Amino acid sequence: MDRKQALDEIKRIDREIVLLEHTAALLEWDEETQMPPEGLEGRAAQISLLKGYIHDLTASPEMGEALEACGEEQSVEDHALRRIHKREYDRAVKVPKTLVVAMSEAESRGQNAWVSARKDEDFASFAPYLEKIISLKREYAEAVGYEGLPYDALLDDYEPGMTSAQIDGVFAPLKAEVLKLLERITSCPQADDRFLYEEYPRDLQDQFGRQVLHDMGFDFKRGQLAEAVHPFTTTVGYDDVRITTRYTEPSVSSPLFSTIHEEGHGLYELGASNERTRGTVLADGVSMAIHESQSRLWENIIGRSGEFWEYYYPQLQGLFPSQLGGITKDAFLRGINRVEPSFIRVNADEVTYNLHIILRYELEKRLVSGDLKVGDLPWAWNSLMQELLGITPEKPSDGVLQDVHWSAGLIGYFPTYALGNLYGAQFYRTLLKQLPDTPQRISEGNLHDTAAWLNTEIYRRGSIYEPAELLKKVTGEVLDSSCFIEYLWDKYAHIYQW
Amino acid sequence: MDRKQALDEIKRIDREIVLLEHTAALLEWDEETQMPPEGLEGRAAQISLLKGYIHDLTASPEMGEALEACGEEQSVEDHALRRIHKREYDRAVKVPKTLVVAMSEAESRGQNAWVSARKDEDFASFAPYLEKIISLKREYAEAVGYEGLPYDALLDDYEPGMTSAQIDGVFAPLKAEVLKLLERITSCPQADDRFLYEEYPRDLQDQFGRQVLHDMGFDFKRGQLAEAVHPFTTTVGYDDVRITTRYTEPSVSSPLFSTIHEEGHGLYELGASNERTRGTVLADGVSMAIHESQSRLWENIIGRSGEFWEYYYPQLQGLFPSQLGGITKDAFLRGINRVEPSFIRVNADEVTYNLHIILRYELEKRLVSGDLKVGDLPWAWNSLMQELLGITPEKPSDGVLQDVHWSAGLIGYFPTYALGNLYGAQFYRTLLKQLPDTPQRISEGNLHDTAAWLNTEIYRRGSIYEPAELLKKVTGEVLDSSCFIEYLWDKYAHIYQW
Repeated sequence: MDRKQALDEIKRIDREIVLLEHTAALLEWDEETQMPPEGLEGRAAQISLLKGYIHDLTASPEMGEALEACGEEQSVEDHALRRIHKREYDRAVKVPKTLVVAMSEAESRGQNAWVSARKDEDFASFAPYLEKIISLKREYAEAVGYEGLPYDALLDDYEPGMTSAQIDGVFAPLKAEVLKLLERITSCPQADDRFLYEEYPRDLQDQFGRQVLHDMGFDFKRGQLAEAVHPFTTTVGYDDVRITTRYTEPSVSSPLFSTIHEEGHGLYELGASNERTRGTVLADGVSMAIHESQSRLWENIIGRSGEFWEYYYPQLQGLFPSQLGGITKDAFLRGINRVEPSFIRVNADEVTYNLHIILRYELEKRLVSGDLKVGDLPWAWNSLMQELLGITPEKPSDGVLQDVHWSAGLIGYFPTYALGNLYGAQFYRTLLKQLPDTPQRISEGNLHDTAAWLNTEIYRRGSIYEPAELLKKVTGEVLDSSCFIEYLWDKYAHIYQW
Repeated sequence: MDRKQALDEIKRIDREIVLLEHTAALLEWDEETQMPPEGLEGRAAQISLLKGYIHDLTASPEMGEALEACGEEQSVEDHALRRIHKREYDRAVKVPKTLVVAMSEAESRGQNAWVSARKDEDFASFAPYLEKIISLKREYAEAVGYEGLPYDALLDDYEPGMTSAQIDGVFAPLKAEVLKLLERITSCPQADDRFLYEEYPRDLQDQFGRQVLHDMGFDFKRGQLAEAVHPFTTTVGYDDVRITTRYTEPSVSSPLFSTIHEEGHGLYELGASNERTRGTVLADGVSMAIHESQSRLWENIIGRSGEFWEYYYPQLQGLFPSQLGGITKDAFLRGINRVEPSFIRVNADEVTYNLHIILRYELEKRLVSGDLKVGDLPWAWNSLMQELLGITPEKPSDGVLQDVHWSAGLIGYFPTYALGNLYGAQFYRTLLKQLPDTPQRISEGNLHDTAAWLNTEIYRRGSIYEPAELLKKVTGEVLDSSCFIEYLWDKYAHIYQW
């Protein structure tokens, strides 16, 4: 096999893996958005079969030989293709197929158990499923290997190269500064945001959300918006990206910002599939944290800014005159940026959100190491929540059962949300340096120029560069927390007029 | 490999094939019900990949060896499993995988082209796709082999063992009798059915349709109802059957009877998955004609009967007082059973419907043999329509472009609709012999007992027995057209009070 043949073989297997991943994503999308309840067992078996195929292809002898034979001298794209498959191959050959299949089944069943447990406020009924998932994850970490903690092996699945030691280093100043900022904010009179919790007709919310999606540039010929219990975005084809949202309390801001958040992911996925990458594993976000930087940049830095609402608030008022007619734009802005310790992560403000992540990060590290038993998790959750946020949830759905992640086997995923905040602030500062009138354009309803810059700098690059390399290319910087901390202090100093 | 091991191997491969078939069915369901338009190319590649896997498993050396080694002495279920896989294996090893993949891609593209062509009334834009499909089907027939016509090899895919010679034998008296009945009916004054074409709010239609589905026993925990351009039913998991309907003109009767029709398929599929068959290829209808007998029995023999509307008409009147308040039950019954030559097969009455099938059957036989060129198809369609029904469509969407089947590669499928009429009448006559008060029960809103009888006699048997064997077991008879012809004459003699 010469180098050219080897590369062709990698591309052939890559294409098949991508098709299977899109298919599995559609099975999951359907499960979350419309599958009838008794479909679960068959669906779990289907997903598990496809994940087995993906594992077999990823770790196939053909792939191993082709990776050896193709060398390292290729175009940028082919080099990246080899890098990713080499990494996946090295991991996959270490993991027995039986374990892959067992994880997939445990996760599918775990999600179902979580849905019931959450509805019934019954953590105990979910505990055995979570224990199974964690035990399989430990097996997985041992199979894959790690240098520091077993947890690092899991983390590496979502943020390649990242370790808990590095995260500890970034989260320490983040935690200290956020607690300081939170103390300063809570010493001020609190904004009134009760108007957000009135009755907002759902079809009008949907209409407004779709308008914003459209303005951000979401192509409905290449994607779709539906509802799910826990909003997510998934790519189910070369040109088919599915976004979900949910319409639950609190009424108007949570669904909208959730939609904008998922749209941030969706734009990244749509942009990542282009003439350089289409149909390959490169047509995807490079890591969870970079992905999250895009969703959180749109949701928070742009979506909760004064500029954004300069343009959109009159429209929102027009749709909801009885609810918002008497609320000024500044009052609305204070309302949607109200900072207050609360139970639910996805509804948390930009400041306390980071504490929610630090809490989950600390707990999942301890669950994986075995320092914390699943049976003690509700107690540990509540206790750490009290320590960080000064509040204690009264029911599991407000605490330990609120998130889908652990039930879906996504352990090591949570820290990427906070890392996304840090990356997002660094990207946005660079955008402001290069296009200083961005806030002005946004205030005129021009989201297109921002989306175009992000598309060129980040989306279109897909997985061609590794996270740190991409950050360097775009910003010239390395990851640090100071930019985000500075952004938070500036934003709230402005809101509270310190 | 001993017999036990061989059987286990067949079951292992069977399970994998069934999971892949359900997955492919979900990809198609999503494509028909909600996929964004640009998703098509990726979706075609996904379906084609899975169909390739299914073909490989069906024709695998492991399957071939196991079929040889397992012998013929098994339980009834295992014997059936072996019978089906032996048949599929023998066919599949004759068909090159490249041809399977090419057919799948041509059909996926063909369907898309058909949707556009139908919308644009432009047969020419669809013709090259249809030519490609027919040419691949001919290749397929040659690969599989046949005794009579190449067309028989295609027919055999939908109705195992059936030949065009047999169909010619059954269709000849059917055509003669139907033409005679049609002449008699058209010599009578025609029923007024204009009230069916008024404005019927769609949500109320949906509500009524779902009520009937519920009464027939459709389990919404094991299935779902959605919308598609051309209604179909598909099984996407062990306990997950998806039905579709459409709300188009004519307004109230067409969507309802389409829903009941698909529900007939759906009940069969749900019943076929039970403790004897679940997760195997036996959990499926045994043939297209038997499947169609179930949908048409519910749609026509029951759904258009006086007994059915004895119970449901007051409810329908209650939902639509302004449209139906002044229409008596008998007038309604005459309206929904109005016989009149018309263009669209799926809206055709029970009498002329058979002529629509005979037309398609004749044309597709000639397309496959090469006697008829695709370019001449619109002309041939119109000419035969004039001959059989005395009318000529003015646009392709009323004629040659009305059905999805040919674009989806379903050539040899149409005759099973009329065979379904024949089987259905034979089954229903047996039901009446065994439970003579069935009409009375239906008139009291009890559809449950009919569904239970069908479940025991037909649904639960899945694919365990071959069509002719099943017919014999249930009715003690062989296929013939006289029962259906008698049913038609009786029904219309009653309606027209001859």
